[in-house]
Amino acid sequence: MYKLVLIRHGQSTWNEANLFTGWTDVDLTERGVNEAKEAGKLLKEAGLNFKYAYTSLLKRAIKTLNYVLEEMDLMWIPVEKSWRLNEKHYGNLQGMNKKEMVEKFGAEQVLLWRRSYNVRPPEIPLNDPRHPATDPRYINLKEEGAQPGTEALLDTVGRIVPYWKSDIKEKLKTHKEVLVAAHGNSLRGIIKHLKNISDEDIINLNIPTGIAYVFEFDNDFNLIKDEFLADKETLKKLMEEVANQTKK
Amino acid sequence: MYKLVLIRHGQSTWNEANLFTGWTDVDLTERGVNEAKEAGKLLKEAGLNFKYAYTSLLKRAIKTLNYVLEEMDLMWIPVEKSWRLNEKHYGNLQGMNKKEMVEKFGAEQVLLWRRSYNVRPPEIPLNDPRHPATDPRYINLKEEGAQPGTEALLDTVGRIVPYWKSDIKEKLKTHKEVLVAAHGNSLRGIIKHLKNISDEDIINLNIPTGIAYVFEFDNDFNLIKDEFLADKETLKKLMEEVANQTKK
Repeated sequence: MYKLVLIRHGQSTWNEANLFTGWTDVDLTERGVNEAKEAGKLLKEAGLNFKYAYTSLLKRAIKTLNYVLEEMDLMWIPVEKSWRLNEKHYGNLQGMNKKEMVEKFGAEQVLLWRRSYNVRPPEIPLNDPRHPATDPRYINLKEEGAQPGTEALLDTVGRIVPYWKSDIKEKLKTHKEVLVAAHGNSLRGIIKHLKNISDEDIINLNIPTGIAYVFEFDNDFNLIKDEFLADKETLKKLMEEVANQTKK
Repeated sequence: MYKLVLIRHGQSTWNEANLFTGWTDVDLTERGVNEAKEAGKLLKEAGLNFKYAYTSLLKRAIKTLNYVLEEMDLMWIPVEKSWRLNEKHYGNLQGMNKKEMVEKFGAEQVLLWRRSYNVRPPEIPLNDPRHPATDPRYINLKEEGAQPGTEALLDTVGRIVPYWKSDIKEKLKTHKEVLVAAHGNSLRGIIKHLKNISDEDIINLNIPTGIAYVFEFDNDFNLIKDEFLADKETLKKLMEEVANQTKK
Protein backbone atom coordinates (compact mmCIF):
# COMPACT_ATOMS: atom_id res chain seq x y z
CA MET A 1 0.00 0.00 0.00
CA TYR A 2 1.32 3.40 -1.05
CA LYS A 3 0.09 6.84 -0.07
CA LEU A 4 0.78 9.92 -2.15
CA VAL A 5 -0.43 13.28 -0.87
CA LEU A 6 -0.60 16.30 -3.17
CA ILE A 7 -1.09 19.74 -1.73
CA ARG A 8 -1.47 23.03 -3.56
CA HIS A 9 0.26 25.93 -1.77
CA GLY A 10 -1.81 28.07 0.60
CA GLN A 11 -3.24 31.38 -0.63
CA SER A 12 -0.56 33.65 -2.09
CA THR A 13 -0.51 37.45 -2.26
CA TRP A 14 -1.31 37.24 -5.98
CA ASN A 15 -4.11 34.69 -5.44
CA GLU A 16 -5.56 37.30 -3.11
CA ALA A 17 -5.03 40.13 -5.61
CA ASN A 18 -6.48 37.86 -8.37
CA LEU A 19 -3.40 38.18 -10.60
CA PHE A 20 -1.95 35.55 -12.93
CA THR A 21 1.12 34.28 -11.07
CA GLY A 22 2.77 31.40 -12.94
CA TRP A 23 6.51 31.41 -12.21
CA THR A 24 6.44 34.74 -10.34
CA ASP A 25 7.86 34.02 -6.89
CA VAL A 26 5.23 35.58 -4.60
CA ASP A 27 4.81 34.94 -0.89
CA LEU A 28 1.96 33.37 1.08
CA THR A 29 -0.68 35.59 2.70
CA GLU A 30 -1.49 35.15 6.38
CA ARG A 31 -4.49 33.09 5.29
CA GLY A 32 -2.13 30.96 3.15
CA VAL A 33 0.15 30.33 6.13
CA ASN A 34 -2.84 29.28 8.22
CA GLU A 35 -4.12 27.00 5.45
CA ALA A 36 -0.74 25.27 5.35
CA LYS A 37 -0.61 24.84 9.14
CA GLU A 38 -4.19 23.53 9.21
CA ALA A 39 -3.38 21.02 6.44
CA GLY A 40 -0.40 19.84 8.49
CA LYS A 41 -2.61 19.32 11.56
CA LEU A 42 -5.19 17.35 9.55
CA LEU A 43 -2.50 15.18 7.94
CA LYS A 44 -1.04 14.43 11.36
CA GLU A 45 -4.47 13.58 12.78
CA ALA A 46 -5.09 11.32 9.76
CA GLY A 47 -1.96 9.37 10.72
CA LEU A 48 0.08 10.21 7.64
CA ASN A 49 3.79 9.74 8.16
CA PHE A 50 5.82 10.95 5.21
CA LYS A 51 9.36 9.75 4.62
CA TYR A 52 10.12 11.99 1.65
CA ALA A 53 8.76 15.21 0.21
CA TYR A 54 8.88 17.16 -3.04
CA THR A 55 8.28 20.78 -3.85
CA SER A 56 8.86 23.36 -6.59
CA LEU A 57 11.43 26.17 -6.80
CA LEU A 58 8.79 28.74 -5.78
CA LYS A 59 8.56 29.96 -2.21
CA ARG A 60 4.78 29.74 -1.87
CA ALA A 61 5.06 25.95 -2.33
CA ILE A 62 8.31 25.61 -0.34
CA LYS A 63 6.89 27.55 2.62
CA THR A 64 3.63 25.59 2.49
CA LEU A 65 5.68 22.39 2.69
CA ASN A 66 7.75 23.77 5.58
CA TYR A 67 4.63 24.70 7.59
CA VAL A 68 3.00 21.31 6.91
CA LEU A 69 6.15 19.43 7.94
CA GLU A 70 6.58 21.58 11.04
CA GLU A 71 3.03 20.80 12.21
CA MET A 72 3.68 17.09 11.59
CA ASP A 73 7.05 17.21 13.38
CA LEU A 74 8.65 15.99 10.14
CA MET A 75 10.96 18.88 9.26
CA TRP A 76 13.86 16.40 9.26
CA ILE A 77 12.73 14.32 6.26
CA PRO A 78 14.51 14.76 2.91
CA VAL A 79 12.99 17.38 0.62
CA GLU A 80 13.68 17.55 -3.10
CA LYS A 81 12.92 20.71 -5.08
CA SER A 82 12.42 20.78 -8.83
CA TRP A 83 11.46 23.32 -11.49
CA ARG A 84 9.33 20.52 -12.95
CA LEU A 85 6.87 21.03 -10.09
CA ASN A 86 6.56 24.78 -10.77
CA GLU A 87 3.20 26.27 -11.70
CA LYS A 88 2.28 26.44 -15.39
CA HIS A 89 4.14 29.41 -16.88
CA TYR A 90 1.52 32.03 -17.73
CA GLY A 91 3.67 33.95 -20.21
CA ASN A 92 2.92 37.63 -20.58
CA LEU A 93 -0.26 37.29 -18.48
CA GLN A 94 1.92 37.03 -15.35
CA GLY A 95 1.16 40.05 -13.18
CA MET A 96 -2.12 40.80 -14.99
CA ASN A 97 -5.47 40.90 -13.18
CA LYS A 98 -7.73 37.97 -14.11
CA LYS A 99 -10.96 39.98 -14.24
CA GLU A 100 -9.33 42.79 -16.25
CA MET A 101 -8.10 40.21 -18.75
CA VAL A 102 -11.68 38.92 -19.04
CA GLU A 103 -12.92 42.46 -19.74
CA LYS A 104 -10.21 42.95 -22.34
CA PHE A 105 -10.13 39.57 -24.10
CA GLY A 106 -13.45 37.98 -23.13
CA ALA A 107 -14.26 35.15 -20.73
CA GLU A 108 -13.87 32.44 -23.33
CA GLN A 109 -10.32 33.43 -24.34
CA VAL A 110 -9.20 33.75 -20.72
CA LEU A 111 -10.69 30.37 -19.82
CA LEU A 112 -8.73 28.89 -22.74
CA TRP A 113 -5.50 30.48 -21.46
CA ARG A 114 -6.21 29.31 -17.93
CA ARG A 115 -7.59 25.87 -18.48
CA SER A 116 -7.40 24.58 -22.03
CA TYR A 117 -4.97 21.80 -22.72
CA ASN A 118 -3.03 23.20 -25.62
CA VAL A 119 -3.60 26.99 -25.89
CA ARG A 120 -0.58 28.98 -24.69
CA PRO A 121 -0.90 32.52 -23.29
CA PRO A 122 1.12 35.19 -25.18
CA GLU A 123 4.85 34.54 -24.75
CA ILE A 124 7.02 36.64 -22.44
CA PRO A 125 9.87 38.19 -24.51
CA LEU A 126 13.34 36.71 -23.99
CA ASN A 127 14.74 40.15 -23.06
CA ASP A 128 12.06 40.68 -20.39
CA PRO A 129 13.58 40.60 -16.86
CA ARG A 130 10.76 38.22 -15.87
CA HIS A 131 11.97 35.58 -18.35
CA PRO A 132 13.30 32.40 -16.63
CA ALA A 133 16.34 32.40 -18.94
CA THR A 134 17.87 35.21 -16.84
CA ASP A 135 16.74 33.92 -13.42
CA PRO A 136 19.48 32.29 -11.29
CA ARG A 137 17.05 29.46 -10.41
CA TYR A 138 16.82 28.29 -14.02
CA ILE A 139 19.79 29.81 -15.83
CA ASN A 140 22.03 26.74 -15.45
CA LEU A 141 19.41 24.06 -16.05
CA LYS A 142 20.14 22.03 -19.17
CA GLU A 143 16.81 20.20 -19.36
CA GLU A 144 14.42 20.99 -22.18
CA GLY A 145 11.57 23.24 -21.11
CA ALA A 146 13.30 24.64 -18.01
CA GLN A 147 13.27 28.24 -19.36
CA PRO A 148 9.80 28.64 -20.88
CA GLY A 149 8.40 31.96 -22.11
CA THR A 150 4.88 30.56 -21.78
CA GLU A 151 3.19 27.19 -21.32
CA ALA A 152 -0.05 25.46 -22.10
CA LEU A 153 -1.13 22.70 -19.70
CA LEU A 154 0.18 20.33 -22.38
CA ASP A 155 3.70 21.65 -21.71
CA THR A 156 3.30 21.47 -17.94
CA VAL A 157 2.09 17.86 -18.22
CA GLY A 158 5.02 17.17 -20.54
CA ARG A 159 7.55 18.17 -17.89
CA ILE A 160 5.76 16.78 -14.82
CA VAL A 161 4.75 13.27 -15.97
CA PRO A 162 8.33 12.15 -16.80
CA TYR A 163 9.40 13.41 -13.34
CA TRP A 164 6.53 11.54 -11.72
CA LYS A 165 7.63 8.33 -13.46
CA SER A 166 11.38 8.63 -12.95
CA ASP A 167 11.51 10.22 -9.49
CA ILE A 168 8.36 10.65 -7.40
CA LYS A 169 6.88 7.21 -8.13
CA GLU A 170 10.23 5.53 -7.45
CA LYS A 171 10.54 7.33 -4.10
CA LEU A 172 6.95 6.33 -3.29
CA LYS A 173 7.86 2.68 -3.94
CA THR A 174 10.79 2.97 -1.54
CA HIS A 175 9.25 5.15 1.16
CA LYS A 176 5.51 4.22 0.95
CA GLU A 177 4.33 7.71 1.98
CA VAL A 178 5.36 10.76 -0.02
CA LEU A 179 4.17 14.38 0.07
CA VAL A 180 4.22 16.79 -2.90
CA ALA A 181 3.63 20.49 -2.22
CA ALA A 182 3.19 22.31 -5.51
CA HIS A 183 0.79 24.33 -7.66
CA GLY A 184 -2.66 24.17 -9.27
CA ASN A 185 -1.45 23.19 -12.71
CA SER A 186 1.57 21.02 -11.90
CA LEU A 187 -0.69 18.99 -9.59
CA ARG A 188 -3.40 18.97 -12.29
CA GLY A 189 -0.78 17.37 -14.54
CA ILE A 190 -0.03 14.60 -12.05
CA ILE A 191 -3.73 14.01 -11.34
CA LYS A 192 -4.57 13.90 -15.05
CA HIS A 193 -2.00 11.13 -15.42
CA LEU A 194 -2.99 9.21 -12.26
CA LYS A 195 -6.74 9.31 -12.96
CA ASN A 196 -6.41 9.09 -16.72
CA ILE A 197 -8.48 12.27 -17.26
CA SER A 198 -8.98 13.39 -20.87
CA ASP A 199 -7.49 16.60 -22.32
CA GLU A 200 -11.04 18.04 -22.41
CA ASP A 201 -12.19 17.04 -18.93
CA ILE A 202 -9.10 18.27 -17.09
CA ILE A 203 -10.41 21.84 -17.58
CA ASN A 204 -13.11 21.16 -14.97
CA LEU A 205 -10.75 20.06 -12.19
CA ASN A 206 -10.34 22.88 -9.66
CA ILE A 207 -7.82 22.29 -6.88
CA PRO A 208 -8.36 24.42 -3.79
CA THR A 209 -5.37 26.01 -2.02
CA GLY A 210 -3.97 24.36 1.09
CA ILE A 211 -6.14 21.21 1.06
CA ALA A 212 -4.32 17.86 1.06
CA TYR A 213 -5.40 15.46 -1.70
CA VAL A 214 -4.69 11.86 -0.65
CA PHE A 215 -4.11 9.08 -3.23
CA GLU A 216 -3.92 5.45 -2.16
CA PHE A 217 -2.43 2.73 -4.35
CA ASP A 218 -2.45 -1.04 -3.80
CA ASN A 219 0.71 -3.14 -3.91
CA ASP A 220 0.48 -3.39 -7.72
CA PHE A 221 0.24 0.41 -7.88
CA ASN A 222 -3.41 0.51 -8.90
CA LEU A 223 -5.12 3.68 -7.69
CA ILE A 224 -7.75 2.46 -5.20
CA LYS A 225 -8.86 5.69 -3.52
CA ASP A 226 -8.46 9.44 -3.83
CA GLU A 227 -9.98 12.05 -1.55
CA PHE A 228 -9.45 15.57 -0.30
CA LEU A 229 -8.70 15.85 3.41
CA ALA A 230 -11.47 18.32 4.28
CA ASP A 231 -15.17 18.24 5.13
CA LYS A 232 -17.55 18.49 2.16
CA GLU A 233 -18.81 21.99 2.94
CA THR A 234 -15.30 23.51 3.14
CA LEU A 235 -14.31 21.73 -0.05
CA LYS A 236 -17.36 22.89 -2.03
CA LYS A 237 -16.81 26.49 -0.94
CA LEU A 238 -13.11 26.44 -1.85
CA MET A 239 -13.61 24.83 -5.26
CA GLU A 240 -16.28 27.40 -6.17
CA GLU A 241 -13.86 30.14 -5.12
CA VAL A 242 -11.24 28.89 -7.60
CA ALA A 243 -13.80 28.46 -10.38
CA ASN A 244 -15.18 31.98 -9.81
CA GLN A 245 -11.90 33.88 -10.04
CA THR A 246 -12.74 35.25 -13.49
CA LYS A 247 -16.47 35.92 -12.83
CA LYS A 248 -17.55 39.54 -12.71
CA MET B 1 38.00 30.89 -4.53
CA TYR B 2 35.56 29.02 -2.29
CA LYS B 3 33.35 30.38 0.47
CA LEU B 4 32.01 28.19 3.25
CA VAL B 5 29.68 29.74 5.80
CA LEU B 6 28.94 28.00 9.08
CA ILE B 7 26.10 29.17 11.25
CA ARG B 8 25.03 27.89 14.64
CA HIS B 9 21.24 27.88 15.08
CA GLY B 10 19.60 30.88 16.75
CA GLN B 11 18.74 30.75 20.45
CA SER B 12 16.60 27.73 21.33
CA THR B 13 14.09 27.33 24.15
CA TRP B 14 16.60 25.16 26.00
CA ASN B 15 19.48 27.60 25.41
CA GLU B 16 17.22 30.15 27.08
CA ALA B 17 16.35 27.78 29.95
CA ASN B 18 20.09 26.88 30.23
CA LEU B 19 19.47 23.14 29.78
CA PHE B 20 21.74 20.60 28.10
CA THR B 21 20.04 19.96 24.76
CA GLY B 22 22.12 17.64 22.57
CA TRP B 23 19.83 15.66 20.28
CA THR B 24 16.62 16.87 21.96
CA ASP B 25 14.56 18.48 19.20
CA VAL B 26 13.64 21.83 20.76
CA ASP B 27 12.33 24.89 18.91
CA LEU B 28 13.83 28.36 18.44
CA THR B 29 12.82 31.20 20.75
CA GLU B 30 11.58 34.48 19.29
CA ARG B 31 15.10 35.83 19.83
CA GLY B 32 16.44 32.81 17.95
CA VAL B 33 14.14 33.48 15.01
CA ASN B 34 15.28 37.11 14.90
CA GLU B 35 18.94 36.08 15.10
CA ALA B 36 18.43 33.81 12.09
CA LYS B 37 16.66 36.53 10.08
CA GLU B 38 19.36 39.07 10.98
CA ALA B 39 22.09 36.65 9.89
CA GLY B 40 20.27 36.20 6.58
CA LYS B 41 20.15 39.96 6.07
CA LEU B 42 23.87 40.36 6.84
CA LEU B 43 24.80 37.49 4.51
CA LYS B 44 22.75 39.06 1.72
CA GLU B 45 24.35 42.47 2.31
CA ALA B 46 27.78 40.82 2.26
CA GLY B 47 26.98 39.52 -1.24
CA LEU B 48 27.00 35.82 -0.37
CA ASN B 49 25.14 33.73 -2.91
CA PHE B 50 24.85 30.12 -1.82
CA LYS B 51 24.15 27.37 -4.31
CA TYR B 52 23.81 24.54 -1.80
CA ALA B 53 23.07 24.19 1.91
CA TYR B 54 23.42 21.62 4.66
CA THR B 55 21.71 21.21 7.98
CA SER B 56 21.10 18.66 10.72
CA LEU B 57 17.99 16.61 11.51
CA LEU B 58 17.08 18.98 14.35
CA LYS B 59 14.48 21.70 13.84
CA ARG B 60 16.39 24.51 15.54
CA ALA B 61 19.05 24.22 12.81
CA ILE B 62 16.57 23.49 9.99
CA LYS B 63 14.43 26.50 10.90
CA THR B 64 17.49 28.72 11.24
CA LEU B 65 18.50 27.68 7.73
CA ASN B 66 14.97 28.32 6.42
CA TYR B 67 14.90 31.84 7.88
CA VAL B 68 18.38 32.66 6.55
CA LEU B 69 17.49 31.39 3.06
CA GLU B 70 14.19 33.25 3.09
CA GLU B 71 15.91 36.55 3.89
CA MET B 72 18.41 35.87 1.10
CA ASP B 73 15.66 34.90 -1.37
CA LEU B 74 17.36 31.52 -1.73
CA MET B 75 14.70 29.13 -0.44
CA TRP B 76 14.88 27.32 -3.78
CA ILE B 77 18.47 26.01 -3.45
CA PRO B 78 19.01 22.32 -2.63
CA VAL B 79 19.23 21.52 1.08
CA GLU B 80 20.72 18.31 2.44
CA LYS B 81 20.01 17.17 6.00
CA SER B 82 22.21 14.76 7.90
CA TRP B 83 22.39 13.30 11.42
CA ARG B 84 26.16 13.85 11.11
CA LEU B 85 25.54 17.59 11.56
CA ASN B 86 23.53 17.07 14.77
CA GLU B 87 24.74 18.59 18.03
CA LYS B 88 27.04 16.48 20.23
CA HIS B 89 24.85 13.94 22.04
CA TYR B 90 24.87 14.95 25.72
CA GLY B 91 23.77 11.55 27.06
CA ASN B 92 21.88 11.57 30.31
CA LEU B 93 22.63 15.27 30.84
CA GLN B 94 20.04 16.11 28.16
CA GLY B 95 17.23 18.05 29.85
CA MET B 96 19.36 18.88 32.92
CA ASN B 97 20.06 22.46 33.98
CA LYS B 98 23.69 23.48 33.43
CA LYS B 99 24.04 25.45 36.67
CA GLU B 100 22.37 22.69 38.72
CA MET B 101 24.80 20.19 37.26
CA VAL B 102 27.66 22.47 38.31
CA GLU B 103 26.27 22.59 41.86
CA LYS B 104 25.92 18.80 41.89
CA PHE B 105 29.09 17.66 40.13
CA GLY B 106 31.36 20.73 40.29
CA ALA B 107 32.43 23.20 37.62
CA GLU B 108 35.44 21.16 36.56
CA GLN B 109 33.48 17.98 35.82
CA VAL B 110 30.78 19.87 33.93
CA LEU B 111 33.38 21.73 31.86
CA LEU B 112 34.90 18.37 30.98
CA TRP B 113 31.50 17.03 29.87
CA ARG B 114 30.80 20.18 27.88
CA ARG B 115 34.11 20.93 26.33
CA SER B 116 36.76 18.27 26.80
CA TYR B 117 37.77 16.29 23.79
CA ASN B 118 37.34 12.75 25.03
CA VAL B 119 35.22 12.71 28.23
CA ARG B 120 31.69 11.44 27.56
CA PRO B 121 28.72 12.46 29.73
CA PRO B 122 26.88 9.55 31.43
CA GLU B 123 25.18 7.38 28.82
CA ILE B 124 21.43 7.49 28.22
CA PRO B 125 20.01 3.96 28.74
CA LEU B 126 18.93 2.07 25.60
CA ASN B 127 15.39 1.62 26.99
CA ASP B 128 15.01 5.36 27.64
CA PRO B 129 12.43 6.92 25.26
CA ARG B 130 14.98 9.70 24.60
CA HIS B 131 17.45 7.20 23.07
CA PRO B 132 18.00 7.77 19.30
CA ALA B 133 17.68 4.00 18.69
CA THR B 134 13.88 4.35 19.05
CA ASP B 135 13.53 7.69 17.25
CA PRO B 136 12.09 7.50 13.67
CA ARG B 137 14.77 9.96 12.52
CA TYR B 138 17.60 7.56 13.33
CA ILE B 139 16.02 4.10 13.65
CA ASN B 140 16.73 3.05 10.05
CA LEU B 141 20.21 4.54 9.73
CA LYS B 142 22.87 1.87 9.19
CA GLU B 143 25.90 4.10 9.68
CA GLU B 144 28.09 3.60 12.72
CA GLY B 145 27.46 6.17 15.43
CA ALA B 146 23.99 7.20 14.20
CA GLN B 147 22.28 6.03 17.44
CA PRO B 148 24.59 7.24 20.20
CA GLY B 149 23.71 7.07 23.92
CA THR B 150 26.29 9.78 24.60
CA GLU B 151 29.19 11.45 22.83
CA ALA B 152 32.45 13.18 23.60
CA LEU B 153 33.60 15.83 21.12
CA LEU B 154 35.96 13.11 19.84
CA ASP B 155 32.89 11.15 18.67
CA THR B 156 31.22 14.21 17.13
CA VAL B 157 34.43 15.04 15.24
CA GLY B 158 34.63 11.37 14.20
CA ARG B 159 31.26 11.57 12.44
CA ILE B 160 31.49 15.10 11.07
CA VAL B 161 34.99 15.15 9.51
CA PRO B 162 34.36 12.19 7.14
CA TYR B 163 31.13 13.93 6.03
CA TRP B 164 33.02 17.17 5.48
CA LYS B 165 35.54 15.34 3.29
CA SER B 166 33.14 13.16 1.31
CA ASP B 167 30.19 15.52 0.92
CA ILE B 168 30.40 19.16 2.00
CA LYS B 169 33.86 19.83 0.59
CA GLU B 170 32.93 18.18 -2.70
CA LYS B 171 29.79 20.31 -2.99
CA LEU B 172 31.87 23.39 -2.17
CA LYS B 173 34.24 22.51 -5.05
CA THR B 174 31.26 22.28 -7.41
CA HIS B 175 29.15 25.18 -6.15
CA LYS B 176 31.79 27.62 -4.78
CA GLU B 177 29.51 28.97 -2.02
CA VAL B 178 27.97 26.61 0.53
CA LEU B 179 26.08 27.25 3.78
CA VAL B 180 25.99 24.90 6.77
CA ALA B 181 23.42 25.58 9.52
CA ALA B 182 24.16 23.35 12.48
CA HIS B 183 25.15 23.28 16.16
CA GLY B 184 27.86 24.43 18.54
CA ASN B 185 29.74 21.16 18.65
CA SER B 186 29.24 19.83 15.13
CA LEU B 187 30.54 23.18 13.85
CA ARG B 188 33.35 23.03 16.40
CA GLY B 189 34.29 19.68 14.82
CA ILE B 190 34.48 21.18 11.32
CA ILE B 191 36.39 24.26 12.53
CA LYS B 192 38.86 22.10 14.49
CA HIS B 193 39.61 20.26 11.26
CA LEU B 194 39.75 23.37 9.03
CA LYS B 195 41.96 25.38 11.38
CA ASN B 196 43.94 22.42 12.65
CA ILE B 197 43.13 23.22 16.31
CA SER B 198 44.53 20.83 18.92
CA ASP B 199 42.36 18.58 21.12
CA GLU B 200 43.27 20.82 24.08
CA ASP B 201 42.70 24.22 22.48
CA ILE B 202 39.31 23.40 20.97
CA ILE B 203 37.83 23.70 24.48
CA ASN B 204 38.28 27.49 24.30
CA LEU B 205 36.36 28.01 21.06
CA ASN B 206 32.91 29.43 21.82
CA ILE B 207 30.55 29.81 18.88
CA PRO B 208 27.74 32.32 19.39
CA THR B 209 24.19 31.49 18.20
CA GLY B 210 22.98 32.90 14.93
CA ILE B 211 26.23 34.55 13.79
CA ALA B 212 27.56 33.53 10.38
CA TYR B 213 31.19 32.37 10.36
CA VAL B 214 32.71 32.89 6.91
CA PHE B 215 35.64 30.76 5.68
CA GLU B 216 37.44 31.62 2.46
CA PHE B 217 39.69 29.18 0.59
CA ASP B 218 41.94 29.83 -2.38
CA ASN B 219 41.81 27.73 -5.54
CA ASP B 220 44.11 25.11 -3.97
CA PHE B 221 41.75 24.92 -1.01
CA ASN B 222 44.09 26.63 1.44
CA LEU B 223 42.20 28.49 4.15
CA ILE B 224 43.04 32.15 3.59
CA LYS B 225 40.55 33.95 5.82
CA ASP B 226 37.97 33.24 8.50
CA GLU B 227 35.78 35.79 10.23
CA PHE B 228 32.46 36.13 11.99
CA LEU B 229 29.92 38.33 10.21
CA ALA B 230 29.22 40.69 13.12
CA ASP B 231 30.71 43.79 14.66
CA LYS B 232 33.33 43.21 17.39
CA GLU B 233 31.18 44.42 20.29
CA THR B 234 28.26 42.12 19.45
CA LEU B 235 30.63 39.22 18.97
CA LYS B 236 32.45 39.73 22.28
CA LYS B 237 29.17 39.95 24.19
CA LEU B 238 27.78 36.78 22.58
CA MET B 239 30.93 34.73 23.12
CA GLU B 240 31.04 35.71 26.79
CA GLU B 241 27.39 34.69 27.08
CA VAL B 242 28.20 31.17 25.83
CA ALA B 243 31.27 30.88 28.06
CA ASN B 244 29.29 32.04 31.12
CA GLN B 245 26.45 29.53 30.90
CA THR B 246 27.78 27.50 33.82
CA LYS B 247 28.87 30.43 36.00
CA LYS B 248 26.89 31.05 39.17
